[in-house]
Amino acid sequence: MIIDVLNGPNLNMLGTRQPEVYGSTTLQDIEALCADKAKLLGFELRFAQTNHEGALVELIHNAKDTAAGIVLNAGAYTHTSVAIHDALASVALPCIEVHLSNIHAREPFRHKSFVTPVAAGLICGLGAQGYAFALEALAEMLPPTE
Amino acid sequence: MIIDVLNGPNLNMLGTRQPEVYGSTTLQDIEALCADKAKLLGFELRFAQTNHEGALVELIHNAKDTAAGIVLNAGAYTHTSVAIHDALASVALPCIEVHLSNIHAREPFRHKSFVTPVAAGLICGLGAQGYAFALEALAEMLPPTE
Amino acid sequence: MIIDVLNGPNLNMLGTRQPEVYGSTTLQDIEALCADKAKLLGFELRFAQTNHEGALVELIHNAKDTAAGIVLNAGAYTHTSVAIHDALASVALPCIEVHLSNIHAREPFRHKSFVTPVAAGLICGLGAQGYAFALEALAEMLPPTE
Amino acid sequence: MIIDVLNGPNLNMLGTRQPEVYGSTTLQDIEALCADKAKLLGFELRFAQTNHEGALVELIHNAKDTAAGIVLNAGAYTHTSVAIHDALASVALPCIEVHLSNIHAREPFRHKSFVTPVAAGLICGLGAQGYAFALEALAEMLPPTE
Amino acid sequence: MIIDVLNGPNLNMLGTRQPEVYGSTTLQDIEALCADKAKLLGFELRFAQTNHEGALVELIHNAKDTAAGIVLNAGAYTHTSVAIHDALASVALPCIEVHLSNIHAREPFRHKSFVTPVAAGLICGLGAQGYAFALEALAEMLPPTE
Amino acid sequence: MIIDVLNGPNLNMLGTRQPEVYGSTTLQDIEALCADKAKLLGFELRFAQTNHEGALVELIHNAKDTAAGIVLNAGAYTHTSVAIHDALASVALPCIEVHLSNIHAREPFRHKSFVTPVAAGLICGLGAQGYAFALEALAEMLPPTE
Amino acid sequence: MIIDVLNGPNLNMLGTRQPEVYGSTTLQDIEALCADKAKLLGFELRFAQTNHEGALVELIHNAKDTAAGIVLNAGAYTHTSVAIHDALASVALPCIEVHLSNIHAREPFRHKSFVTPVAAGLICGLGAQGYAFALEALAEMLPPTE
Amino acid sequence: MIIDVLNGPNLNMLGTRQPEVYGSTTLQDIEALCADKAKLLGFELRFAQTNHEGALVELIHNAKDTAAGIVLNAGAYTHTSVAIHDALASVALPCIEVHLSNIHAREPFRHKSFVTPVAAGLICGLGAQGYAFALEALAEMLPPTE
Amino acid sequence: MIIDVLNGPNLNMLGTRQPEVYGSTTLQDIEALCADKAKLLGFELRFAQTNHEGALVELIHNAKDTAAGIVLNAGAYTHTSVAIHDALASVALPCIEVHLSNIHAREPFRHKSFVTPVAAGLICGLGAQGYAFALEALAEMLPPTE
Amino acid sequence: MIIDVLNGPNLNMLGTRQPEVYGSTTLQDIEALCADKAKLLGFELRFAQTNHEGALVELIHNAKDTAAGIVLNAGAYTHTSVAIHDALASVALPCIEVHLSNIHAREPFRHKSFVTPVAAGLICGLGAQGYAFALEALAEMLPPTE
Amino acid sequence: MIIDVLNGPNLNMLGTRQPEVYGSTTLQDIEALCADKAKLLGFELRFAQTNHEGALVELIHNAKDTAAGIVLNAGAYTHTSVAIHDALASVALPCIEVHLSNIHAREPFRHKSFVTPVAAGLICGLGAQGYAFALEALAEMLPPTE
Amino acid sequence: MIIDVLNGPNLNMLGTRQPEVYGSTTLQDIEALCADKAKLLGFELRFAQTNHEGALVELIHNAKDTAAGIVLNAGAYTHTSVAIHDALASVALPCIEVHLSNIHAREPFRHKSFVTPVAAGLICGLGAQGYAFALEALAEMLPPTE
Repeated sequence: MIIDVLNGPNLNMLGTRQPEVYGSTTLQDIEALCADKAKLLGFELRFAQTNHEGALVELIHNAKDTAAGIVLNAGAYTHTSVAIHDALASVALPCIEVHLSNIHAREPFRHKSFVTPVAAGLICGLGAQGYAFALEALAEMLPPTE
Repeated sequence: MIIDVLNGPNLNMLGTRQPEVYGSTTLQDIEALCADKAKLLGFELRFAQTNHEGALVELIHNAKDTAAGIVLNAGAYTHTSVAIHDALASVALPCIEVHLSNIHAREPFRHKSFVTPVAAGLICGLGAQGYAFALEALAEMLPPTE
Repeated sequence: MIIDVLNGPNLNMLGTRQPEVYGSTTLQDIEALCADKAKLLGFELRFAQTNHEGALVELIHNAKDTAAGIVLNAGAYTHTSVAIHDALASVALPCIEVHLSNIHAREPFRHKSFVTPVAAGLICGLGAQGYAFALEALAEMLPPTE
Repeated sequence: MIIDVLNGPNLNMLGTRQPEVYGSTTLQDIEALCADKAKLLGFELRFAQTNHEGALVELIHNAKDTAAGIVLNAGAYTHTSVAIHDALASVALPCIEVHLSNIHAREPFRHKSFVTPVAAGLICGLGAQGYAFALEALAEMLPPTE
Repeated sequence: MIIDVLNGPNLNMLGTRQPEVYGSTTLQDIEALCADKAKLLGFELRFAQTNHEGALVELIHNAKDTAAGIVLNAGAYTHTSVAIHDALASVALPCIEVHLSNIHAREPFRHKSFVTPVAAGLICGLGAQGYAFALEALAEMLPPTE
Repeated sequence: MIIDVLNGPNLNMLGTRQPEVYGSTTLQDIEALCADKAKLLGFELRFAQTNHEGALVELIHNAKDTAAGIVLNAGAYTHTSVAIHDALASVALPCIEVHLSNIHAREPFRHKSFVTPVAAGLICGLGAQGYAFALEALAEMLPPTE
Repeated sequence: MIIDVLNGPNLNMLGTRQPEVYGSTTLQDIEALCADKAKLLGFELRFAQTNHEGALVELIHNAKDTAAGIVLNAGAYTHTSVAIHDALASVALPCIEVHLSNIHAREPFRHKSFVTPVAAGLICGLGAQGYAFALEALAEMLPPTE
Repeated sequence: MIIDVLNGPNLNMLGTRQPEVYGSTTLQDIEALCADKAKLLGFELRFAQTNHEGALVELIHNAKDTAAGIVLNAGAYTHTSVAIHDALASVALPCIEVHLSNIHAREPFRHKSFVTPVAAGLICGLGAQGYAFALEALAEMLPPTE
Repeated sequence: MIIDVLNGPNLNMLGTRQPEVYGSTTLQDIEALCADKAKLLGFELRFAQTNHEGALVELIHNAKDTAAGIVLNAGAYTHTSVAIHDALASVALPCIEVHLSNIHAREPFRHKSFVTPVAAGLICGLGAQGYAFALEALAEMLPPTE
Repeated sequence: MIIDVLNGPNLNMLGTRQPEVYGSTTLQDIEALCADKAKLLGFELRFAQTNHEGALVELIHNAKDTAAGIVLNAGAYTHTSVAIHDALASVALPCIEVHLSNIHAREPFRHKSFVTPVAAGLICGLGAQGYAFALEALAEMLPPTE
Repeated sequence: MIIDVLNGPNLNMLGTRQPEVYGSTTLQDIEALCADKAKLLGFELRFAQTNHEGALVELIHNAKDTAAGIVLNAGAYTHTSVAIHDALASVALPCIEVHLSNIHAREPFRHKSFVTPVAAGLICGLGAQGYAFALEALAEMLPPTE
Repeated sequence: MIIDVLNGPNLNMLGTRQPEVYGSTTLQDIEALCADKAKLLGFELRFAQTNHEGALVELIHNAKDTAAGIVLNAGAYTHTSVAIHDALASVALPCIEVHLSNIHAREPFRHKSFVTPVAAGLICGLGAQGYAFALEALAEMLPPTE
């Protein structure tokens, strides 16, 4: 059972970028943490990052027939992308939305999310740990494989 | 006389995606329907789809000196892309805006279109048939070639 | 199989009124064009124009048991009439909304349509040809009579 | 002592129109119910329906010197008609506003009423029974005739 | 068959408070009027008033398994309490919303009601009589007991 | 040279309706005042009142080939009628907008006028005298007949 | 009986400034026109222009005990000055608001007037003639001197 | 090390209330789940529910000197209570905001949270599991006791 | 002559809570300061604090027949409580609104006060001293007792 | 130690202007009251009034090196002047904002104050007494001179 | 060839006022820098500052027949003055708008500029250097004198 | 010392696209102008254009460790891209925002810039010259290399 953990723009800069907001964890650290948690839960992990909206749309399309669920941190595209909203609606997979910082406690333009209406759950402000929780939440939602 | 029929994000998923909203027709079916109609009208058809906003901008640029008109279903980028608006303004070709579903009868964020102010006409809610009508409308607008 | 083509306020002035916006076609020209197309499609055409909101409401009521579909250009009432919205909802017939100009590219008060939420499709900015497309679209939607 | 019970657009379609919203009662049923209640309360009933805003304005004008009170279900004109607002203000009669459905629990455009600021009371969501209550409320407000 | 008639903040001040808005009737008068009407309709009346939002929430919870319907005048909490909205949604009993004055004709902050979307009907501006009508409306809605 | 002085809904009630807002002058008084002023200016006066939006639209259409200018007090339709806006735009005659009361100093919903964008001038708050000024203003604008 | 005709910022530029909006009449022409009309009506004219908001406030204060009425074209301060609003309220004299162009048909920021709520009447879009009408309107409102 | 898990209005109805939104888990189930998780993490659990805004304020005050962190599901008060916002700001403890359903994907009035700006993190839409994650998140944030 | 000094939610935390905003004065200090000032002015002081909206409503009710005036710092309920607004309106006593910080210079949600429209005066940003000024202001407003 | 008490437009009209709103006290009375209070507190008083925004800006500049604090009633400029806001920010002196009437309980355009964000405190609705309180508040804030 | 460099309110305080926002450069420094640059470009410089909106209006009027272009830093009047907007429109000279700080990155009330729609270009956030750039930009726009 | 001059969508069309808005200068002309100016200032120039939002994000990332400053004309993405906003925030380099036309004087959707809050300065409406000014401004901001 494959889970896609998909990351949007600027997340490749993690650890160097605004540490007072995002902390010093790198995306590699997050991938490692997800790998550990996935192994524990019996998932196969597919972890990706892209700065391109269209590429994120296609990663979601690709999940349609190959993955059981999606953990999505769409970064800045969260707030502006109807295309990602539509891509998620088209694949009909359980999706958990994750943000490292508490987007609803930051600038007003970060309070709007096009991901939320098509996500099962939302975790924000818990840093890298939010990814681990999201994987656990998917484990709870998905029927056991045998 | 070439006509570009350009399609935006997620339209490659047509037929599998939310059939209660978009029906079971695939993008290949639409291409076939357009090809038939174009032949009838004496047009050469160029049919494309992309999930990338920048690629859509460049397909429009490319039409500037090679095509006589554009049929555009910009999908989700309709509602968010100033870049596509500007690209259309820069090429000065007649453009018909098409949507499979009636975007003005759906969620409020789909009521805003950056394509409409630079399009000659708008057809929505008529499914694949809307593309055929758009080609006919261009035929009416364009001077006959000899 | 009867189709009602209903026209709202000021459309009787067509041809004389603001030709830079609406062109020089008259309502009689549109009726002739619709008659030709209807004959082709095997429809019986009922074509009407009124400047009265209440009369338009009653033309829609009248369609309920006598017509198979409606092509509606409600003119200025499009933007202000909840009564026409309710009338269309009450008759449960397929309705195609038509406008000669591209209302969504004009003044903001023309962007609101009370017809759209109760219409199957919308065609605007294609002039008289929009009526012909609307009749074709109804032909596609309606079950064949035998 | 005459009471005018005035009904606006589409209410003639009652019973056939969207029964899941408005029920299967017809306007004739409501008239009968009002007649019974009026007789009980010693009122003479004048019951009317029109789809024309201007006609509704004139029915209100007509009440000025001939009626003691008005029960008004202005239908869709409730939400759009300043003319009816002004007509009610000009006749200075006690008026009870009635709606079959709970307009404040429906679409936002039905939350605005131009009748409310010039009405003594408002009853909505109680179906035909609302008319009977409105007549009783007028009976309470009006001085007894002798 | 028990009916709860529940009253919110400041209604204990009735008769002394702003008589030009609310009249000189006291809450005791209203209780008496309700008792008479309830007896007539075969209901057992439970009549309560509280100034505490949380207490009103709990009175609604309490109705869940013991009452057949609710008449609710939530007073000022009508306009601000999501908690009461949720409480009503959780008990799934028919509820009639009552206000002594015509709240939709007063200050704009009284036009918003969190009760309306979860109420079957709304009566306002008819003073104490509105309570009696609400009880009758519940009688109509509830299946007869035998 | 004919001038149309057109009056909208409720103006037939003038003199009896809310004298604290509109004064005790009747519409007959205004017609007499206009007749006197028109004679002085060498105009032929056509004076009309209607409560029907559609009829007002048609009175404006009728002016197109028969009148030299319009004085328009559209009453309540001023604030709601796109149809009257479009009718004025279609006839291309000089039009002076008149209101008895100072609409921009009254309720917010009277601050919006669909007549103003298609009128040459606006006079409000000057009572019946405003009509006389409007006729003089038209006299200034129109070329002298010989 | 003195009448103050007060003019706000930029009106000294009249005749040279944007003639397509304001025409070629100069402020001296308007003063002459007002002088003629005032003589006819038996008024003594005081005519002033200033570009300073504070000076306009003081011209209004000065009118308090020395003038019988005010004709005010506050120019751009119309749209921004609460101070002029308060000055007019403090002097309690009849005031007619005049604008050369039809401010309600121009940019949205010109639709707001702080003068209107404290003015008896409003005339706009009639050019210099509007001043003459304003003086006549004051003549009508003021008690005759003997 | 004590952790307060505080629950707001209507959460006592859990399991019986709108199971299609909130599931069939009861508040007792959640308390048990929290107790297990707390034991695992070495926390002492204090679990409370109240329907009273003021009581919730005081539970937060009480945490100030006795608890190390707060898990808060303020229910409906999330959206309306500045008092709870201020209480959290005054105690300066790490707080994780939890909601059973995805509040940002429901009615607009649930998108506003007065808790978020004073919370470290937010978890919603993950049902009872969200509480367990919140406890883990606190464990991560708090310095180890020895 | 009794004066009620009433304090809303979180004010019991004063001195410990966000000293950078509210300073280090405690509520006991404020009570002492009020007691001194009251003695000086010949008032009997009744000083109370509650975190419950309903309790604050009842403290205001209680003032009706026993106090001569109210000094009210409703804390966070200032911004959200229509119930307190109505309670103040119902008791018709002179009320001075006090806030320790300058609420109109803080977050936008603190700019709205439901107390202001029913208060004689407002003092904010002057800390504890504001209470003393409020008592003096009441002394000025109240008729001397003999 | 000098304190500037600065007054904006129309305050010179005090006592004659709208006494139902502002009372019959004149600005001379207020100056006398301030002089008494200043003497008591050991301040030297500088009292000024101007109707000119620019002059008020310069009075504030002038305070920079010569005064210890400012009491400011900017009158109508309170609501519109960014220039006064910037002037206050540039001088960095403690400033108390005073208004005779309760501006937050009047017309909405008086609810916005550009002074508040740069003022230490706000007193309104307490008439001339507010000035005396403002002087006392400054005395509290300023370090004692020796 | 004369260029007017005009400065609005509070700019005389430069260097002393909020150095963290505006730096320590004084207006004299800016005048010197402009004089140098003007000499280089062959312009005659006229440099002025005023705190009075009306005076700024008149400085712009004065430029009409004597200057070739305007560099305008209208300070706080940028955001509030329609009068300056109209003055610039009336003189029809090329104008470059300058601000020392980046107004579009500061408080929302500084994002609105009445100067921008009538300016050829905008430079902000570049401190005193912005003035030099503005002079160079005018040099580019103006025809060479011989 | 390297400076990145980055250009967004449609700027490759410069010179052919809407010359009435953007002039006839091509992007090659701008690159040449920048090269000249950079040489003069001792900068090494890196000049790029892309139509892809993601590519623009990555060009900004790339600047982080290799460039000393950025000149950014993000074209249409200026108005819609939170991703570019975040990218700029993450690299912490001085950035000057440039637009050829005066975006704040064009359509409202061009008034919003996500670049401005993270830019040191803004130049618009000065055509290609704006790029040269931006390079000079960076020269002023950057410490001299030796």
